[in-house]
Amino acid sequence: MAPRKQQEIFDATLWLVAEKGYDGLTVEGVAERSGVNKTTIYRWWPSKAALLGAALVEADVLGFEPPDTGSLRGDLVALVEGVRRLLTEPPASDIAVAALGAAVRHPELDGRRFFVDRFVRERQIFERAVRRGELAGSVDPMLVVDLLAGAVWVRAVFRGLPVSDGFAAEAVSAVLDGVGAG
Amino acid sequence: MAPRKQQEIFDATLWLVAEKGYDGLTVEGVAERSGVNKTTIYRWWPSKAALLGAALVEADVLGFEPPDTGSLRGDLVALVEGVRRLLTEPPASDIAVAALGAAVRHPELDGRRFFVDRFVRERQIFERAVRRGELAGSVDPMLVVDLLAGAVWVRAVFRGLPVSDGFAAEAVSAVLDGVGAG
Repeated sequence: MAPRKQQEIFDATLWLVAEKGYDGLTVEGVAERSGVNKTTIYRWWPSKAALLGAALVEADVLGFEPPDTGSLRGDLVALVEGVRRLLTEPPASDIAVAALGAAVRHPELDGRRFFVDRFVRERQIFERAVRRGELAGSVDPMLVVDLLAGAVWVRAVFRGLPVSDGFAAEAVSAVLDGVGAG
Repeated sequence: MAPRKQQEIFDATLWLVAEKGYDGLTVEGVAERSGVNKTTIYRWWPSKAALLGAALVEADVLGFEPPDTGSLRGDLVALVEGVRRLLTEPPASDIAVAALGAAVRHPELDGRRFFVDRFVRERQIFERAVRRGELAGSVDPMLVVDLLAGAVWVRAVFRGLPVSDGFAAEAVSAVLDGVGAG
C-alpha cells in the first residue's frame, strides 16, 4: 500500500476513536472516511484492534522525534513539553487520550508497542547524556521517562488540571536535582 | 442509608465496572448484585456516573490512609507501594484500572474527586516533612505525588511491565535525591 494511503487510513482510525471512542470505531467507518475499500483494510490489518495498534505507532500525526538540544536538561524539558502538547492540545490530545484509554481496556490492541517504540528513541537522550558526563551510566532511563511522562498524564488527564508553562522545567528539576533537603 | 448497605452498593458498582467495563455497568445490575431496590439507588445517586464517582471516593475497598513512618522517604516509599498494590494486585487493580480508565472517557463521572480526595490526605506527608526539616516549604507536593504515582501508572498499566520490588525505593530516591551528575 502506498505510504500516503496508509497514513490516510491511520488518520481516519485515530479521528474515529477520538470522536466515537473505541466501541464506536469500526473498520467500515474507517473505510468510509478514508475512501479505501473495507476488504483492502482487512487484508493489511485483521481487526480494528490491529488497525488502531498500528496507527498508534505508525501514524505521522503521533510521530515522535527525540529532542537533541545539547544538554540532558534541555532534552528532558523538551520531552516533557512534547508529552504536554500530546495530552493537552487538541486534536492530538483527543486522539491520544482516547487511544491510550482504549489500550488500557483492550489488551488485544497491544498499546504497549506505542511505549516500546517511543522508548527506543527516548533512550538516545540518555546515551548522549552519559557520553557527555551529565548522567551516571547506572541511572535507569525508563524510570526517568516514566516519572516525567506519568506526571503529565496524572496532572492533565486524571486531575484535569492545566499543565502550567513552568511545569516541564519544574518536573525535570525535581528528577535531575532532587527535592529533598539532603 | 446505613453505611454498611452503602458499602455493599459501592462494592457491587466497582465489581461490575471491573468485570463489564463502564458501558456494561448499569444501576439495574448494581441493584441486582447488592440486593437493593433500583429506585432506592436512584434516590441517592441520580445516574450510574454519579454512583461510580461516589464509589471511587467513598468505597472502603479503595480506602486510603496516608502512611506515617516517621520519615519523608519512608512515607513516600509506602505511598508508592500503595499505588503499586492498587494498580497491580487483583481484585483492586481490576477495579482501579477499569474505573480510572472510565473516568478519563466520561467526565460526567467526575473521577477528579478521587484524586482531590487522596491529595488532601497525601499533603499531610509533606507538611510533616517540612516541619521535620526534611523538605523545603517551597517544594510542590502535588508535583512529587504526580511524578511518583504517574510512574507506577505508566510502568504497570501503559507498558504492562512488572513493577519490581525495588521500584518504590528507586523512584523515591530519584525524586528526593535527583539522578543528575550535578
